[in-house]
Amino acid sequence: MVMDDAGDLRDIGEPEIDGAFLASGGVARVRDALERDALPVVDAGGLRIGAPIARPGKIVCIGLNYSDHAAESGAAVPSEPVVFMKAPNTMIGPDDQVLVPRGSVKTDWEIELAVVIGETCRYLESRQEALSRIAGYAICNDVSEREFQLERGGQWDKGKSCETFNPFGPWLVTADDVPDPQDLGMRLWVNGEQRQNGATKNMIFDVAEIVRYLSRFMVLEPGDVINTGTPAGVAMGTPGQPYLRAGDVVELEIDGLGRQRQTVGQA
Amino acid sequence: MVMDDAGDLRDIGEPEIDGAFLASGGVARVRDALERDALPVVDAGGLRIGAPIARPGKIVCIGLNYSDHAAESGAAVPSEPVVFMKAPNTMIGPDDQVLVPRGSVKTDWEIELAVVIGETCRYLESRQEALSRIAGYAICNDVSEREFQLERGGQWDKGKSCETFNPFGPWLVTADDVPDPQDLGMRLWVNGEQRQNGATKNMIFDVAEIVRYLSRFMVLEPGDVINTGTPAGVAMGTPGQPYLRAGDVVELEIDGLGRQRQTVGQA
Repeated sequence: MVMDDAGDLRDIGEPEIDGAFLASGGVARVRDALERDALPVVDAGGLRIGAPIARPGKIVCIGLNYSDHAAESGAAVPSEPVVFMKAPNTMIGPDDQVLVPRGSVKTDWEIELAVVIGETCRYLESRQEALSRIAGYAICNDVSEREFQLERGGQWDKGKSCETFNPFGPWLVTADDVPDPQDLGMRLWVNGEQRQNGATKNMIFDVAEIVRYLSRFMVLEPGDVINTGTPAGVAMGTPGQPYLRAGDVVELEIDGLGRQRQTVGQA
Repeated sequence: MVMDDAGDLRDIGEPEIDGAFLASGGVARVRDALERDALPVVDAGGLRIGAPIARPGKIVCIGLNYSDHAAESGAAVPSEPVVFMKAPNTMIGPDDQVLVPRGSVKTDWEIELAVVIGETCRYLESRQEALSRIAGYAICNDVSEREFQLERGGQWDKGKSCETFNPFGPWLVTADDVPDPQDLGMRLWVNGEQRQNGATKNMIFDVAEIVRYLSRFMVLEPGDVINTGTPAGVAMGTPGQPYLRAGDVVELEIDGLGRQRQTVGQA
């Protein structure tokens, strides 16, 4: 579905918004159909909202990309992007339930600006080239189990790939509707109390640099997702702050990208 | 395609061997058709051999899973599995060209036993349950750029996800045709000189334990691939051993799983 300028939802008449949709000019196709008023309005009341991108080929994450979060994590500010991955099947809708894994005592939140790739990126030379290949942006909660990530044998991926660990959406806002991805405020609340209050202008490596940099280490494809890092305010960084437990409610918001609300359950 | 007992290749009449194929009982379907002699023989002479599994949802890797490789890497023997990921679009056929990434000086080889998941794995309780959800096994070359992996900012995934870094196959040998996955010899040559000579009996964490363990940290799905670690003999572990350069030839073999041969090119 697509949201029109009036805020109405319309059926795009395509099976999925995924890599194949993006690679085949789907955004332009839908925009054109929208301008011709050819898309029927849908009453989505009561429907579950899924993630606005289906089956990403990969979810690449940038670690410690805000200096205040690096400091609260006890880590140095990185001299080049820290790169890790999470399993693509962690993607869920923006308001779906997040499950605390069995045996977990340190399930944590991370609000992030997520980038969705629109065209293949391979050894990009310039920032402009990088920006031109971005399909759009969305909110992501890069849910993380800190014990699994940091105390269970080395690499972070183990604490990043648990079931339900990547709430995403509600919208994929196309790149042309985000005039400056480095000028977005981002806020997260747990049970109504604000825990994160950041701004994408404080990224150490900005979106253009991240996409350009990653394209030298891997081939990014249409539909791939990049989680660009979280600012300060996660449970791990706040002494005395409890981690997530069943019954908690997490809400997230980024300027122009909408709002998420997850209740927490137990796996 | 499937190879019959006589060594002939036959058209399975299905679009892909992928997660959907495995989840829908594809192996049994093809076995039944083979027994009824319902599959036409194909002359594959001159055709490129692709990877025998299409579009894995994820490639999960186990690090330092042979004590001799841990020792040559200067790392401690892990007390529980070290888990990292590589991008699923690194998969190539067993004889496709491997590309040294631009700027790379430490592109290395790693022969590994790869596991392909046949049924969803989530919080498995037992080793038996784990083994019963494996579709089959294949050879994998877990190509790795050591500078990207170890000297460029923390997490290993950066040196594991480069284009062409996961030659896979030639065959997916179904689990019932591998009586004991912990009793397989594995050998790798570079330019005709043997560099790795290991055996899956020397894994620190065996296949059953790896699948059971991983299922507690992520949901494994049909078609997912697990690279189970490499024995000693990689370039990084051998003083004076050159890393891979354009023109090199890498050959790999695991008992019962066939043979790979890659020439190395420059990205």
